Amino acid sequence: MTNQTMQDASISPAEKTQDSINNERLQNAIAALAAFGGRDDGGVARETLTQIDLDARRHLIATARALGCEVETDDCANLFFRRLGTTDLPPVLTGSHADTQPVGGKLDGAYGVLAGLEVIAALNDAGITTRRAIEVVAWTNEEGSRFGPGAMGSSAFVDPSRLPAYREVRDGDNITFGEAVDAALLASADVSRRPLALPIASCVELHIEQGPVLERAHAALGVVTGIQSVRWYKVECIGMAAHAGTTPMDERSDAMMAAVAIAQQLYVYAAKQAASNLRLTLGRWQVGPNSVNTIPGKVDFTIDVRCVDADVLERFEQFLAEITTSHQWRGNISFDCFFSRPPTHFPADMLSLIERACMRAGHQAKRGDPQKLTSGAFHDAMYLAEHCPTAMIFVPSKGGISHNAAEETAPEDLYLGVQALAYTLVELANR
Amino acid sequence: MTNQTMQDASISPAEKTQDSINNERLQNAIAALAAFGGRDDGGVARETLTQIDLDARRHLIATARALGCEVETDDCANLFFRRLGTTDLPPVLTGSHADTQPVGGKLDGAYGVLAGLEVIAALNDAGITTRRAIEVVAWTNEEGSRFGPGAMGSSAFVDPSRLPAYREVRDGDNITFGEAVDAALLASADVSRRPLALPIASCVELHIEQGPVLERAHAALGVVTGIQSVRWYKVECIGMAAHAGTTPMDERSDAMMAAVAIAQQLYVYAAKQAASNLRLTLGRWQVGPNSVNTIPGKVDFTIDVRCVDADVLERFEQFLAEITTSHQWRGNISFDCFFSRPPTHFPADMLSLIERACMRAGHQAKRGDPQKLTSGAFHDAMYLAEHCPTAMIFVPSKGGISHNAAEETAPEDLYLGVQALAYTLVELANR
Repeated sequence: MTNQTMQDASISPAEKTQDSINNERLQNAIAALAAFGGRDDGGVARETLTQIDLDARRHLIATARALGCEVETDDCANLFFRRLGTTDLPPVLTGSHADTQPVGGKLDGAYGVLAGLEVIAALNDAGITTRRAIEVVAWTNEEGSRFGPGAMGSSAFVDPSRLPAYREVRDGDNITFGEAVDAALLASADVSRRPLALPIASCVELHIEQGPVLERAHAALGVVTGIQSVRWYKVECIGMAAHAGTTPMDERSDAMMAAVAIAQQLYVYAAKQAASNLRLTLGRWQVGPNSVNTIPGKVDFTIDVRCVDADVLERFEQFLAEITTSHQWRGNISFDCFFSRPPTHFPADMLSLIERACMRAGHQAKRGDPQKLTSGAFHDAMYLAEHCPTAMIFVPSKGGISHNAAEETAPEDLYLGVQALAYTLVELANR
Repeated sequence: MTNQTMQDASISPAEKTQDSINNERLQNAIAALAAFGGRDDGGVARETLTQIDLDARRHLIATARALGCEVETDDCANLFFRRLGTTDLPPVLTGSHADTQPVGGKLDGAYGVLAGLEVIAALNDAGITTRRAIEVVAWTNEEGSRFGPGAMGSSAFVDPSRLPAYREVRDGDNITFGEAVDAALLASADVSRRPLALPIASCVELHIEQGPVLERAHAALGVVTGIQSVRWYKVECIGMAAHAGTTPMDERSDAMMAAVAIAQQLYVYAAKQAASNLRLTLGRWQVGPNSVNTIPGKVDFTIDVRCVDADVLERFEQFLAEITTSHQWRGNISFDCFFSRPPTHFPADMLSLIERACMRAGHQAKRGDPQKLTSGAFHDAMYLAEHCPTAMIFVPSKGGISHNAAEETAPEDLYLGVQALAYTLVELANR
């Protein structure tokens, strides 16, 4: 707490809650949750609905109850920790997910859940009541590594018709998601069940950036304006496998020659589109027969292309269609879009509120203004935005590293992120 | 036999042998050997020194003995079928290999062995004796698919110091080549053993082209002037794996972007070198982590580059060094030459003899002149050329296809190939 705020007689509940965030308690909470699946290298292995995850859920339930929260769950085993408001109006929601990649860090997801619980603890310390209830959620299976796709919990919450298909998805041990959810619900039989898709007033998710933008900008806090649109394509180049030594160049139908020519044109196109912030990744390649002395007869590669401007992606797809057509003389070349997601734009009034919250936290800590940025990764908030006014706050990731044991954020930045969240939630809960 | 040759009173032994080749017996012999490992699709699965190969060897030994040949073997289990000459001068050698790829055709290798036996049968029919002995060889493990490298039998024959290292090579079932050779020698304990590297007067190998050059030229026979020089490189591009969504383009070290840029420049270079007949294949690619939404952190690819002119390959390597250096800003890029073989040039007097033999066979059949070409594939003859004057004759491969069940050559072309071989061998054996 600075002298300036101490002297301010007209301090608001939002400001008071922000100032009541306890950094030591926050860091301890992060360390305590990281012990569930903790690895010697500092990473965390806590895939969704494993026994380790179920143990972590029991830990979160106990923590929330100790803070006076009501705990509820739903048919997708999402966990809700509710601090009552003075009215029965729809609550303000925060939180994230507690599951990790097979080897993840201690912050991806967990930070957002624990930040919500810290805000509730700070509200308790400050003796503040809000008009609306504040709920902290731990969404089931955001990572999608054990059961695909990711964000099953949040997407089934906003559209329960997705759940039956999710329940049939099997993991590597042939266990269905439905079986895993039922086991989780059995392990929390003391937690009351509630429907999916309940009304929510607004939602704020606090998350690590998982990229290098904030670190590069020396910004402690990020106001996330939206989530990039993404399209995934598979380009298939079919030529004719033949002997590398005996086949003259002008007799070849070399699938790799076609694939490289197309890939090079895509990279050049992306470089020309730098101003529109197009992101292009040719990540997965399959080459057949993949032998030193055989001309490749078949090459598949994937395209992951992202931009916050859907028109840029539309033009990209037109370009892709043109160049695959122009290379038909090299072989049988085709492409297929196997995943597509439009951009998410967070509402302007949510962004201005979050910016104000970040300004106050950042300026108090002499860390300056927040940075506006888009999210290149998906988050549960992407689905919540279909359901209610939603926004996100980011804190920096050291070196931009995530999905890795080396995932790290400076404790000071984690603290400022929770301060910004606290301010935002209380303002929203008093609307 | 044509009327023209019938009327020619001064017909030479070489011509008489050529005219005595029996096409029906040749085709039957090919079908009989193809039954050892024959597949429903017309292909042959007879990897070296398997039980199927040992059975095929017994069949060849029995066939050769029925023709009156002496049969011998050596420490590498190469099989020699000897038709005696009138002198003890070093013999003239022909033949090829009887082993196949895991799924190969009925001609690659087998044709050359059976052609040699057909020449011996024709000599018997014509009652011709030659000054030097004529030997037909079936080299062990030309294909190199079960035990690498290929051409172990012929290369150990010309340089026995290679054999101890070969004997230690293990197949997928952990059996050493040495163990497999010993088992083969035990299975032919009735065959007398002889030293490796015995003197040979000259060697001619008849083989299918395994490429499309003769078919394209409508030529029934090919005079092989030499075997292309080859170099194999591995290019390694190391960048930094990162999230496809969260990492801005200007923060990336994308190993695939570097690999594609280099590959494209190599293809452009090869196109400019078309006149020098450079052959370039980027056949094997390994991408890490090879995930749709992760920027590739490591890409390796192989280069197979061939040319009959070694200077062209030397300049290629200089260009490769220049471009890998010029792309260092993209990541840590290196290359390594892991195999190199200089060109083989067959002697001019062998080529003119073979050309004469092919002309006579081709003109009698109204198929015109033979085509001169180089071999892009390796053959046992490549090693024999280190030991004695050596050359090769090619017949066309339909569609250029080989190492495939669909491998095929017109029976008429197979017949003409053996006719050309017969003429050549008798001329050489009477020198």
